[in-house]
Amino acid sequence: MHTKTLKVNVTLAREKTHYQIHVGGGLLSEAGGITRQALGSQSRRTAVVSNRRVFDLYGAKLIGSLRSNGFQITSWLMGDGERFKSLGTAEKALQFFSNAGLERTDAVIALGGGVVGDLAGFAAATYLRGIPLIHVPTTVTAQIDSAIGGKTGVNLPHSKNAIGSFHQPKAVIIDVETIETLPRRELVGGWCEAVKNGAISGRKLFEQTVTFLSQKQSIASPQLPGLIKSHCEFKAGIVAGDERESAMRTDKQSRRVLNFGHTIGHALEAVTNYKRFRHGEAVGHGMHVAAEISKSMGLLAASELKLLCDGINLCGPLPPADDLDPNEILRLTQADKKRVSGNVQWVLLEEIGRPRIVADQEIPRRLIRDAVRRGLKSTC
Amino acid sequence: MHTKTLKVNVTLAREKTHYQIHVGGGLLSEAGGITRQALGSQSRRTAVVSNRRVFDLYGAKLIGSLRSNGFQITSWLMGDGERFKSLGTAEKALQFFSNAGLERTDAVIALGGGVVGDLAGFAAATYLRGIPLIHVPTTVTAQIDSAIGGKTGVNLPHSKNAIGSFHQPKAVIIDVETIETLPRRELVGGWCEAVKNGAISGRKLFEQTVTFLSQKQSIASPQLPGLIKSHCEFKAGIVAGDERESAMRTDKQSRRVLNFGHTIGHALEAVTNYKRFRHGEAVGHGMHVAAEISKSMGLLAASELKLLCDGINLCGPLPPADDLDPNEILRLTQADKKRVSGNVQWVLLEEIGRPRIVADQEIPRRLIRDAVRRGLKSTC
Repeated sequence: MHTKTLKVNVTLAREKTHYQIHVGGGLLSEAGGITRQALGSQSRRTAVVSNRRVFDLYGAKLIGSLRSNGFQITSWLMGDGERFKSLGTAEKALQFFSNAGLERTDAVIALGGGVVGDLAGFAAATYLRGIPLIHVPTTVTAQIDSAIGGKTGVNLPHSKNAIGSFHQPKAVIIDVETIETLPRRELVGGWCEAVKNGAISGRKLFEQTVTFLSQKQSIASPQLPGLIKSHCEFKAGIVAGDERESAMRTDKQSRRVLNFGHTIGHALEAVTNYKRFRHGEAVGHGMHVAAEISKSMGLLAASELKLLCDGINLCGPLPPADDLDPNEILRLTQADKKRVSGNVQWVLLEEIGRPRIVADQEIPRRLIRDAVRRGLKSTC
Repeated sequence: MHTKTLKVNVTLAREKTHYQIHVGGGLLSEAGGITRQALGSQSRRTAVVSNRRVFDLYGAKLIGSLRSNGFQITSWLMGDGERFKSLGTAEKALQFFSNAGLERTDAVIALGGGVVGDLAGFAAATYLRGIPLIHVPTTVTAQIDSAIGGKTGVNLPHSKNAIGSFHQPKAVIIDVETIETLPRRELVGGWCEAVKNGAISGRKLFEQTVTFLSQKQSIASPQLPGLIKSHCEFKAGIVAGDERESAMRTDKQSRRVLNFGHTIGHALEAVTNYKRFRHGEAVGHGMHVAAEISKSMGLLAASELKLLCDGINLCGPLPPADDLDPNEILRLTQADKKRVSGNVQWVLLEEIGRPRIVADQEIPRRLIRDAVRRGLKSTC
């Protein structure tokens, strides 16, 4: 398929600039032109960062398009998987850039999912104190979430994304056809993130997402670019208001609502050494727990909890979490990095589409523990 | 001595905020109050990053003052010397912050010279995508240069400061008494940087600096805080106009004039594996070479070259450079990172105080080679 390209303009008030997210089917073959437009005529070289699997699938198409737009290309492949999102891998990428003589006006192109985007973005953010970056996300998660907003980073042992930078891309190029080759579980995790966006963003996006999922449409569906675009608009809208995720802001528009499902999600990933769950799968469980807490607090109606669970279930089966120790998980939430002055901030729901940030100490300990137990023991 | 505290306000247009540089004798004992004022009442903890030598001299005084202003303190010491300014050391610092449970509203305090400031700054810039930073510079170089302007970073093998971030401090606290304990060569390098500031900033600062140096005043001189303050004002003024050192700007006000002496200086450091020269000492030679090029180009009068050389000589003796291969040094200038689209940009002089940026290709190769030979063979 080759659909009309959809565009989302992202305004960065702080940087006094803007960039575009391009969404369409078959867009990889136009990546060179989009990149040239975004970087200007001075730019000579790009370093494509990817992993072997993605590069074998899409590298040639991307590089062909870049070459025909006058770019010299160098490419560097990293390992596939969250464990490669480390400072050690970043150092190798940076050393590669340096050996290749990459300069300030050259650019890094991140071709891959969230791990590639976060790592390549961090390397671009810190090489020569920051060089231009283009995201070419190839997973649902990266397309609707991690490639948008300027967050880059790597993990420390036991602390996900503990190291990072804010570094805005010059363009995001989303070829929705890349979703066709995603491993099944990667897709499940991606749709969980989509349901999460819907659950915190007003009812419309939730319904658009659930409708798409419930119709079990082919990925080549003509509705797909529009759905991805809606998610990009939502994410871009939130981050535009809070480009650096100020630690002090407490209003509901805060970027922190994006962490719905993440407090428990991060803990689930950590307690299983990042081996059992894809990030989105862990967020799937995390949303369930957060909704259970919301219900126990009297914030969320049972019918709304059911709607959310239906949405999560449409994403596909999640790996079980019922064997994990709720106390250990609770302990790990205290190590989660979205804290202000030592307090965990929970993102709860008042209804589908209406999040509410609640400080940890406002929720009885037992209520949380029971909700964790209930959320993890039962399927949604 | 305890002099009246001098203050420089630094406005950061991009960040829509400002901070203060505090300069005085005996200021370490007021560091806690200044830090409390800069960070606000929410801030609970600070991690002091330093090295053993500096920490033994000044750690107790700083920590005492921080404690009496309600801060919990943790401290982490790194090795002393440029070779510890690496991503490996940064990772250790970041892991320490994480193990210590440092949070977003906590702060890093860099107590030391340029190496400590750059490394601690980079760690603060990238920990949880950036936490507050206070600079307490204890060398001349750090006080007048590296602690001001928001540059942080670490080296790659053969590429100094190749990795880094811009991260502005919340305050800079300069106790000029710390200069008293500096090793002789550290002081020589520091004064070379001061002469450099003077050479590119209009005649007044050059004369103020040279007058101070020529009177061989005791470091405890009452003129010292005023001199350091003038240098801070100059540096802050330049960086305020170009907080991120835009690669595209070519006007003379550009922050890049600060690189006077640095193209050759960096090459001298690299060719001797960062072992023979202090950074400022290499810049001392580099200024001489740049002035020789300026004179050969017909830009700079011989009498002005002599004035500059007199200033450099007042700093103290520089390690010899006459055994180094000019061709190898020229080759290394091509690897210098202050380039735009592959072109080395030289900072030359039209007169003392009036710099001019000239692209490499506008200068005949032989002229540069001769100037390098002349600049390194002879004393200034």
